[in-house]
Amino acid sequence: MQEKKILITGAEGFIATNLILKLSKIKEFNLVGIDSGIAKSSNKNFTDNLINHNLVDISSSSCLDLIEGSDLIIHLAARGSVVESLANPLENFNANVYSTLILLESMRKTGVRNIVFSSTGGALMGNTPPPVNETSLPAPISPYGSSKLCCEGYLSSYASSFLINSISLRFGNVYGKFSAHKNGVINKWIRSSIKDEEIEIFGNGKSTRDYIHVDDICDGIISSMKRLLNIKEPICEKYHLANNQEISLIELSDIIEMCSNKKLFRNFKDNRNGEVIRNSSEFQLAKKILNFEPQKKFDKEIPLLYDWIRLNEF
Amino acid sequence: MQEKKILITGAEGFIATNLILKLSKIKEFNLVGIDSGIAKSSNKNFTDNLINHNLVDISSSSCLDLIEGSDLIIHLAARGSVVESLANPLENFNANVYSTLILLESMRKTGVRNIVFSSTGGALMGNTPPPVNETSLPAPISPYGSSKLCCEGYLSSYASSFLINSISLRFGNVYGKFSAHKNGVINKWIRSSIKDEEIEIFGNGKSTRDYIHVDDICDGIISSMKRLLNIKEPICEKYHLANNQEISLIELSDIIEMCSNKKLFRNFKDNRNGEVIRNSSEFQLAKKILNFEPQKKFDKEIPLLYDWIRLNEF
Repeated sequence: MQEKKILITGAEGFIATNLILKLSKIKEFNLVGIDSGIAKSSNKNFTDNLINHNLVDISSSSCLDLIEGSDLIIHLAARGSVVESLANPLENFNANVYSTLILLESMRKTGVRNIVFSSTGGALMGNTPPPVNETSLPAPISPYGSSKLCCEGYLSSYASSFLINSISLRFGNVYGKFSAHKNGVINKWIRSSIKDEEIEIFGNGKSTRDYIHVDDICDGIISSMKRLLNIKEPICEKYHLANNQEISLIELSDIIEMCSNKKLFRNFKDNRNGEVIRNSSEFQLAKKILNFEPQKKFDKEIPLLYDWIRLNEF
Repeated sequence: MQEKKILITGAEGFIATNLILKLSKIKEFNLVGIDSGIAKSSNKNFTDNLINHNLVDISSSSCLDLIEGSDLIIHLAARGSVVESLANPLENFNANVYSTLILLESMRKTGVRNIVFSSTGGALMGNTPPPVNETSLPAPISPYGSSKLCCEGYLSSYASSFLINSISLRFGNVYGKFSAHKNGVINKWIRSSIKDEEIEIFGNGKSTRDYIHVDDICDGIISSMKRLLNIKEPICEKYHLANNQEISLIELSDIIEMCSNKKLFRNFKDNRNGEVIRNSSEFQLAKKILNFEPQKKFDKEIPLLYDWIRLNEF
């Protein structure tokens, strides 16, 4: 059997790095990566031998040659920060929406048919009362959330108009290793704990997130790849990949205290605009169609991530 | 009472021209118009004395001065053609999505708080079985439909993040006078009838549209303006403005035959990609909140439009 050419965007990123390590073990794929380098991750040291890596922006014309002949694209490149999107909506729009449309146009021009898209559960749904699922109406409250809705919207029309198959995966809050360049709350607080610094809690600490381990996300991506590579009729599907479990900021800080055996000093601050209060997503549809079921337990994984951050960042 | 400054984008357009004529009678508003001139309508001859008109693109920096001090913006500027959006998705994206984001950024910078946005029912919902309403999940099948979904998505986050109030009005297929530059099926077929030319029917003639008269649309816009200008808490609302009535292409051609007393030669062609098969939208929510109820009857109005086109275009 000929190897399938799989192009991964944002290939130096947190999720991509975990994914490349998993995919390289399957040995059915010729992996090609592109990354703009903007996120300044040092992850490519871990994957250098596993993927044909290219430092180039998606919207660059030289990307067409790399895209051509791909059996499937895994589009993970994005600016993922809600806070940054509030500070500069237009920059976030260009990086997330415009780039994705250019990628879709490149697919159309080169005849590439399949794409797995990294969407978001929480930011897409805003303050819709949890749990949400695929029948919930999107209602983003940050420009970042809007940017992901735009991409899903274009995937919808590109399926009907240009027969480009897609699966949008709406991730919960992803955590795990190879995230040294990321500033999500878990990583930030673990670093604070290691450095004996206080943590900032925006709001009253009761706001929740639906955390999901990167290994579970990668399993969902691989399952989506297989579905797209085997399906005959054109599809445009969306799935929430999450744990359907709300963990509050207070609970998170308790867990980090427990696994570090160190007290965290909590500095409560005003809620930030654009950040959702509560978030959790059902994953029944992904379970049914993608055989997706989260395996990783939060309280087991946080100590492992704590150790990874201590070893790799300090 | 001081006049409210109302900025209208796409001011030379079909809907804007009808709206300006209505608004100018209310005498509570200082009307400012901007238009890129790209659509090459000659409508400004009808409204020249009623509005401070400016030939400028929304994304031009000189627009900021015009936007500043507005009490409300009615954003009607858009590329409305599904077919053109299929031929050039990127051009449609820049004209509809990028421009709208620039407009929202300009509102943010100048402190303008209220916007009525012209969205779409049919193109947004794609082939979702009719009738649709505000609880239906958007599923565009053309890049044009995606472009409107993107704008609604950014209006959602700009309400939460930057306190910009919006009402998105999802229009049915709008018809009526001052549409000489438009190429919708009604206008095209009336012109064909006048010129004794054959008409093209894409598909089997059973595909339907939910036609709505421009006067009814203008009433919905004015009602939305009043709601935005009077409301205290921040809102981001969406309403379908339509007739909740499906009229097939065959029925439409019959009506045009009747009012012209001339046989139409029907040339059946293949369905076009990206065009929805059936479309109709409920308007209960708009009725409840905006007091919207279509007054104009299709079979009464088509003969009037027929006469308007004959007088104004021939």
